[in-house]
Amino acid sequence: MTFTALYDCTLRDGMQGEGMSLSAEEKLRVAHRLDELGIDLIEAGFPSSNPKELELFELLAAERFSNACIAAFGMTRRRGMRADEDPALQVLADCFAPVCTLVGKTWGLHLEKVVKVSREENLAMIGESIGFIVAAGKRALYDAEHFFDGFNDDRSYALACLRAAAQAGAETVICCDTNGGTLPDRVASVMAEVVSELGPTGVRVGIHCHDDAGCAVANTLVAVAAGATHVQGTINGYGERCGNANLVPVIANLQLKLGHECLSEAQLATLTDTAHYLDELLNFTPDPDQPYVGRNAFAHKGGMHVAGVAADPATFEHVDPSLVGNRRELLVSELSGKGTVIERAREAGIALDDGAASRVIERVKALEHQGYHFEAADGSFELLLRKETGDYEPLFRLEHWRVIVEMGHLGHVETEATIKLWVDGERYVRTAEGNGPVHALDRALRDAIGDLYPHLADIQLENFKVRLIDEHSGTAAITRVLLDASDGDDVWGSIGVSENVIEASWEALVDSLEYGMQAGRRTAPESAAGSGAAGSGTAGS
Amino acid sequence: MTFTALYDCTLRDGMQGEGMSLSAEEKLRVAHRLDELGIDLIEAGFPSSNPKELELFELLAAERFSNACIAAFGMTRRRGMRADEDPALQVLADCFAPVCTLVGKTWGLHLEKVVKVSREENLAMIGESIGFIVAAGKRALYDAEHFFDGFNDDRSYALACLRAAAQAGAETVICCDTNGGTLPDRVASVMAEVVSELGPTGVRVGIHCHDDAGCAVANTLVAVAAGATHVQGTINGYGERCGNANLVPVIANLQLKLGHECLSEAQLATLTDTAHYLDELLNFTPDPDQPYVGRNAFAHKGGMHVAGVAADPATFEHVDPSLVGNRRELLVSELSGKGTVIERAREAGIALDDGAASRVIERVKALEHQGYHFEAADGSFELLLRKETGDYEPLFRLEHWRVIVEMGHLGHVETEATIKLWVDGERYVRTAEGNGPVHALDRALRDAIGDLYPHLADIQLENFKVRLIDEHSGTAAITRVLLDASDGDDVWGSIGVSENVIEASWEALVDSLEYGMQAGRRTAPESAAGSGAAGSGTAGS
Repeated sequence: MTFTALYDCTLRDGMQGEGMSLSAEEKLRVAHRLDELGIDLIEAGFPSSNPKELELFELLAAERFSNACIAAFGMTRRRGMRADEDPALQVLADCFAPVCTLVGKTWGLHLEKVVKVSREENLAMIGESIGFIVAAGKRALYDAEHFFDGFNDDRSYALACLRAAAQAGAETVICCDTNGGTLPDRVASVMAEVVSELGPTGVRVGIHCHDDAGCAVANTLVAVAAGATHVQGTINGYGERCGNANLVPVIANLQLKLGHECLSEAQLATLTDTAHYLDELLNFTPDPDQPYVGRNAFAHKGGMHVAGVAADPATFEHVDPSLVGNRRELLVSELSGKGTVIERAREAGIALDDGAASRVIERVKALEHQGYHFEAADGSFELLLRKETGDYEPLFRLEHWRVIVEMGHLGHVETEATIKLWVDGERYVRTAEGNGPVHALDRALRDAIGDLYPHLADIQLENFKVRLIDEHSGTAAITRVLLDASDGDDVWGSIGVSENVIEASWEALVDSLEYGMQAGRRTAPESAAGSGAAGSGTAGS
Repeated sequence: MTFTALYDCTLRDGMQGEGMSLSAEEKLRVAHRLDELGIDLIEAGFPSSNPKELELFELLAAERFSNACIAAFGMTRRRGMRADEDPALQVLADCFAPVCTLVGKTWGLHLEKVVKVSREENLAMIGESIGFIVAAGKRALYDAEHFFDGFNDDRSYALACLRAAAQAGAETVICCDTNGGTLPDRVASVMAEVVSELGPTGVRVGIHCHDDAGCAVANTLVAVAAGATHVQGTINGYGERCGNANLVPVIANLQLKLGHECLSEAQLATLTDTAHYLDELLNFTPDPDQPYVGRNAFAHKGGMHVAGVAADPATFEHVDPSLVGNRRELLVSELSGKGTVIERAREAGIALDDGAASRVIERVKALEHQGYHFEAADGSFELLLRKETGDYEPLFRLEHWRVIVEMGHLGHVETEATIKLWVDGERYVRTAEGNGPVHALDRALRDAIGDLYPHLADIQLENFKVRLIDEHSGTAAITRVLLDASDGDDVWGSIGVSENVIEASWEALVDSLEYGMQAGRRTAPESAAGSGAAGSGTAGS
């Protein structure tokens, strides 16, 4: 059993991908998910390339991680300058991160055409920069950019670059296929040579692939077979062009097929959730066909497949889906989910018998068919459980709402929402303005029922995401709205689905507030539930 | 230079994928595209599994293909029956297709648990069925299902299955990794043994992979390196679970990197168009990150990349994109410099001097600070360029719009948009209903100006994404809307940013249509531009 270090580049190299955008606070959430998954090294970026990165490093410095180390990323020193005079290297030396990864050149073509640095000066840049970082008390990693192209061009110079880093004290040197065009046979043979040449220095050898030839996962695996013990990649293969090596199948393959112990069994079982969590945060539709974690990855259709799997899952499944936290999809009976539902109910403090669990599964199936998706909507799912057990009180009975948005010729937009609803036989009519339709609806609703349910004031809407489900019908397609809300202690998600984005938003908004009030009722009976019981009749009771 | 036969399974195995649906007539169009691409063998399905397949074979029988042969697909004979008594084999023998592919078992587990056939009987089924097809004057291929699992379980029996087919006259025997879980090192070693064992029989050896471990492309390539001379796969990797081996990168890698001449240069240059054509026909959004043919496959952002590519494309590109019919994309973001902007303008046919380029960069920076993000909004970016150079005509002058969405107590939602605008001194007022606010606005707008700009009818909105930018302010935060639109030939993105989701959507919608009409004006000056110049009197001419 070999130890293979897992190095995640999602927060740095992954962010080069099209449409990748995360706030510093969201990156912090990603770092914690990666830590929980069992990633060893999390590349967080350069500590001062812009204010957002600076904020991230300030946030990270205050956090504790149980498994992962944070790696700061930078470049070798500028040419014609001492390492200790380079302000960027000084930033790395001063930052809290215990690990620093420096990227540098290995390929003559780049030295000549891009950076215009001599080969000798480049070797000095590598060695002195790594030495400076090591002297600052850090673990230093060297990313050898364009390594495979450099090796093809001039084998001994490419190896000399790695050796310069190793001799200066780098813990790991990483062979990067930066342009992503190298094929598995070549990666295997080059890596075998690197491992054999660098072996005597005691340095660890790593691999960093891109998917431009569709072989990034395979290239990473054959590099490990050739002796690499450090793999870099991103969750879901995010990254520029065709993406980085996708760590999701890399980890699953290493662990389940090649005998490497990267994660604990419990951590491996969170792989599917982690992959989907990242997609949700980035507002990407999870790839249903993604190896191991996609919704279709273990889907069986056709009688023979279903019968075969029933006789012995090995007939049609290359691994047991539960090992990676995924599940088999059979187009017949759906008994597999009941355990999960009962477990989820137990966590929420809801007693769910076997019959109710079956009804919940039927209901979830029907709703998922309409486009609902409860993975990121725990609040809506808990409400669904409560509706099934009778342990649910609506906050109000809706009569009507209306939203008007209009833009005049001066470009000024006005938004107004009117709401008519009933609580305990009392009718409430309220109109409110807002920055947008959901904001206006939220304000009108709170204006109507805020006094009846004081805990509502603690509930903030934190995030709002909209996506088309059927991407083929343009603006007439089904819209899915995901809302995150928080009461300061807890964060929960809710979902709404409709052809109409406002209706879907309204549905998610109501779920969000109703779920939040459930919590409020539990934790603060003297406020919301109490006032309801004592107040306008039996409101809220 | 080795000849490698390309066998496309899109119309049979590919159709097992989720959401795959084509009429017989559409399948015929696919077959012609595959033929033009230079595919050698097109698997069309079983000639009578249902009326649609029957219709397809009738259509195919009447067609001429310049390069490809049609292969009919079926199974080995039923157990305990003579091959010439099996009605399904008779159908294959009678159909017009010159090639028949028979799938059969190789793995003891399946013989025992799924089909309940003895090992001896299975060998007889293979040999007799292939013999029957050959005697009917066809070229016979044998698909050895679950070959790698069978080989792991019982090497000599798995080889005996292949030998039975070869001895009965099969032209090619195909090793199928049906469950998709085999990794490249194993595929390489098994294939080398198969080629060496089967070599003396003179049979051609093929490979058929699935992507359950994320290695289908690599597995196909290493099999070829080990001596396989027939590769199976589907365009864009369509197929059940995680998909089949994606023929697109397989072909590009074989031809551009491994020295196999599969296609002519001209055919290879249609690879991108062919891949997108299939996606369009199947109503899938082309994967922007797909190796070789994706919109991002040769996209560069960041000053150093752009400068490097300008100095020598080999610095940052593994192959020349034009070889596969793709093109370089320079992405515009805060990081990009003047060179990117000038190059992008040049591509769009806009003359941009140095001063204008600087103004564009300032404008992009200011807009990105507000939350715009032009990477995925090439349409909006080109409009911004045109506005800077004066090469821009708005489609209309807006006076006012208004959206009303209301929900009654029966849960029925109604949406209505009213729009007031001016074109050439003429005022247009239109109201339309829609499934949602953007749909209603889109319909009202098209109702108002559709006759003036007939090309608008070709423009479809394809995708719509909304996300909050500052996620701490909940429903009052800034909303970013990204819209993708297409006119059948081209796909472009546009963006809108506002506190108000409807306003942001409106902005993206207008950009989307204005960009689409720029193309329309260029290609059809007699319609839209002509009518605009001559006034609303010539509307629709």
